[in-house]
Order: sequence, then C-alpha cells, then structure tokens
Amino acid sequence: MAQDDDLIRRVERRTADYIGCIDDDALERWPAFFTVDGLYRIISRENYARGLPASFLYCRGRGMMHDRITALRQANIYEPHVYRHLVSGTRLSREEPEGGWRLHTNFQVIRTMHTGEMVVFAVGFFDDVLVERAGTLLFQEKTVVCDSSRIDTLLVIPI
Amino acid sequence: MAQDDDLIRRVERRTADYIGCIDDDALERWPAFFTVDGLYRIISRENYARGLPASFLYCRGRGMMHDRITALRQANIYEPHVYRHLVSGTRLSREEPEGGWRLHTNFQVIRTMHTGEMVVFAVGFFDDVLVERAGTLLFQEKTVVCDSSRIDTLLVIPI
Amino acid sequence: MAQDDDLIRRVERRTADYIGCIDDDALERWPAFFTVDGLYRIISRENYARGLPASFLYCRGRGMMHDRITALRQANIYEPHVYRHLVSGTRLSREEPEGGWRLHTNFQVIRTMHTGEMVVFAVGFFDDVLVERAGTLLFQEKTVVCDSSRIDTLLVIPI
Repeated sequence: MAQDDDLIRRVERRTADYIGCIDDDALERWPAFFTVDGLYRIISRENYARGLPASFLYCRGRGMMHDRITALRQANIYEPHVYRHLVSGTRLSREEPEGGWRLHTNFQVIRTMHTGEMVVFAVGFFDDVLVERAGTLLFQEKTVVCDSSRIDTLLVIPI
Repeated sequence: MAQDDDLIRRVERRTADYIGCIDDDALERWPAFFTVDGLYRIISRENYARGLPASFLYCRGRGMMHDRITALRQANIYEPHVYRHLVSGTRLSREEPEGGWRLHTNFQVIRTMHTGEMVVFAVGFFDDVLVERAGTLLFQEKTVVCDSSRIDTLLVIPI
Repeated sequence: MAQDDDLIRRVERRTADYIGCIDDDALERWPAFFTVDGLYRIISRENYARGLPASFLYCRGRGMMHDRITALRQANIYEPHVYRHLVSGTRLSREEPEGGWRLHTNFQVIRTMHTGEMVVFAVGFFDDVLVERAGTLLFQEKTVVCDSSRIDTLLVIPI
C-alpha cells in the first residue's frame, strides 16, 4: 500500500516533467522519457476499447521520435500554437508480467493559437507502462487514449 | 502536519480511483465508494452557499445509487457520451464532530459526445466527508457543488 | 530526491490552499500567501519569453495587494463571476541563489458568469519563487504566465 503510493507519487512527478517538457516546447528532450525501443501512440477510445491498432500517431523507438521532432522543426508549415496539459488521478492498473507497471492518468490539453484563441484540444487518459532503468522511470509504452474519435488534423506536437 | 498530509494524500488516491471508475464507465462499482447509508448529491454553488437543499440529483444510500445506475443502463435513451474528470487542490476543511474528515477538491468534467464534440460540462468542487471503515476510506457524504446554476438537462451519469 | 519530493509535495499543498482561497472568494486572505514585499504579476507567455516587463497586472507588496482587493470589493461594477482553478504538474525549476526555490505549476481557470455560462478564461503556468518563513511557505514571487497574449478585459480577480 505504502509501496504503491511511492510508485504512484514517482509516476506523478515523472508525468509532471513530461508535460513540462512538451508545454515548454523542449521537444528535443521528449524521446529521452522513453526506453530506447519504447512505444508512443495516440489512439481513439473507441479503437482502444475494441483492440483495433489504428492510431492517429505511432512511434516505435527513440529514433522515430527524434525524426518526428526534426520534421516538426524543419517543416514549420503549420500555424504556430502551444499546448498546456492538465493531468489528474494517476492510478495503478497492474504490474506487468514482463516487468514494470501499468498506470492510468487522465489528461486534458488546451491549445492556444497565435491569435490568442484557446480551445480544448484533447481529453482522455494516458495508458502507460513504466520501467525502471538506472534509477529512472522510463516509458516502455505510452498510449494516449483520446475520448474523441474526431481529432483535429493539426496534430503535430506530441501529447 | 505530516498526519494531515498523509490523509490528504490518501484522499487524493481515493479520488483518483473514484474518477477512474466513472470515466472508465465502471458505474456498477460506483456505490461501493460510499458508506451503506452515504449521501450523494449535486447542487449549485448558489444553493450551497444559501443552505438551500434543492439539488440537481440526490441519492441516500447505496440502494438508491444502484437503482440509478440500473435505470441508466436500462433506459439508455440518452445520447451516448463519456465524461473525463480533472481534479485539483484537495484541501482539508475540518475534522467532523461525529468522526471522519471533511475535504474539498476542485473538479472539472469534459463531456465528449458520440459525434466527437467536447464541451466543458461542469466545474466546481467536491465537498466530501470521508470515514474509515476496515482500513478503507469511504464517502459518508459527497456533495458535488457546481459553479453554474444552469446545468445541462443531460445529467445522467454521476459526476 | 526524497527531499525534492517533500518540497514539491509541500508546494502542491500550498497551491491547493492558494487556489481554494481565490475560488472560495476569500480574497481578503490572498495577500497573506505572499511575503510582505512579495511580487505578484500576470504576464503573457510571449513577454515572459522575451524578458519584457509589460504585464496585465502588477502588485509589489501586500499593501498593494490589499488595495486591489478593496477596490474590487468597493467598485463592484463588473459583471459577477467566479473562478475555478485546476492545477497540475508542479516541478522544481531550481534553487534560487538568494534563498528559496523556484517551481513551475500548470494552471487552468474556468470562469462561470452569473448567467451560468462557463468558459476557459486562462491557461498557462505559475512561475513561483517560494521561501520559508516561520515554518510556512510564502510566495516571494508569483508570476502568472498566460499562454494567450489576448486576455479578457474582465481581469478583476487575481489568478
């Protein structure tokens, strides 16, 4: 019980750093939150529930994540905008048979455009598998499950 | 002080499980978060401040809560939608004279419709009285105080 | 590490009290969250990034803060509304050279008007410098950095 609480607390802090990294536009540091072969994907709640693999975004491994950030920095053809994450309610789902822990955390992302317009961009939960490597918690998997199956085409920045 | 922090931390974890239960649509487990004769109600900030009893929703005891969920499952005439809770800032209000602790927690609920539309459905705070039963924290009272006195008629799922 | 966690946890609790104070409309207690000569300001993300001093709101010292609340109570010419804060992801930025700690916390404010209308009023992060005085954490600086550079003119209540 106290052990679970320590773990949840550590994951909360790790999540705080994770959302800080994105919201501060320090995206070059984003892949380092994952294991070398870590999985990152964004999927709709509907597909998640049905076990369908179709995702809005899919990255396997830090290399693919770095490529994505590089493309984002170079292309730069999208309208400038920033994200602000709010997260809540980290809860332990289960220990993973192959090691690590699965936890869920609710999230909300507010997007602010260059014009100053603010909009609820995405809500849902993180379905995370974390492992410990050299005393640091890393995401072995991060599945961003979005409540809405209609996502804005302007999905450039990771959530 | 450290004791207060332990209590607040435990209530935060309990709240995480509570909102997880609703947002995961595991509503059959919802009544078990309350004591057998627990009180659940949703009330406007205005009525709460004036001490008026009029509420949007009122359940006294687990039986009434189970009935509500059964009705919700069977009727099923409402437009499909899901909730996503964000919570913040759990703070101790006071120890209750009859035992237990009163705590407040800010909340926000984003509702997503089947069409994918997302909307801020409700914001306010939980005015909770928790008691310990066999090592578990249960809600003796959960008053959901909504900032807006105009609530959507589509109030089917508990907040 | 454990020491950092204790500090972050204490700041989270302090922030919970801070947002509770504003959202409960107990604004007369608001200045006491600051040191006697504390700084409070609201600034756009753009100006913050560029190091420009122009702010939406600026208070230096508890006296100026009290004046602001008094003016707000007496003038009363604005349309009645309430705030609801959600906060997330408190993270340590650094120890300050002159003592105290700098931490960042994401925030969102939902404003509810008398008509019942709810709107995302502001999102951004708190850039806080806290110091310990007689066992209590106080804000030496609280810079409210808003993602949007277009702020509603109805900025009466502190964030």
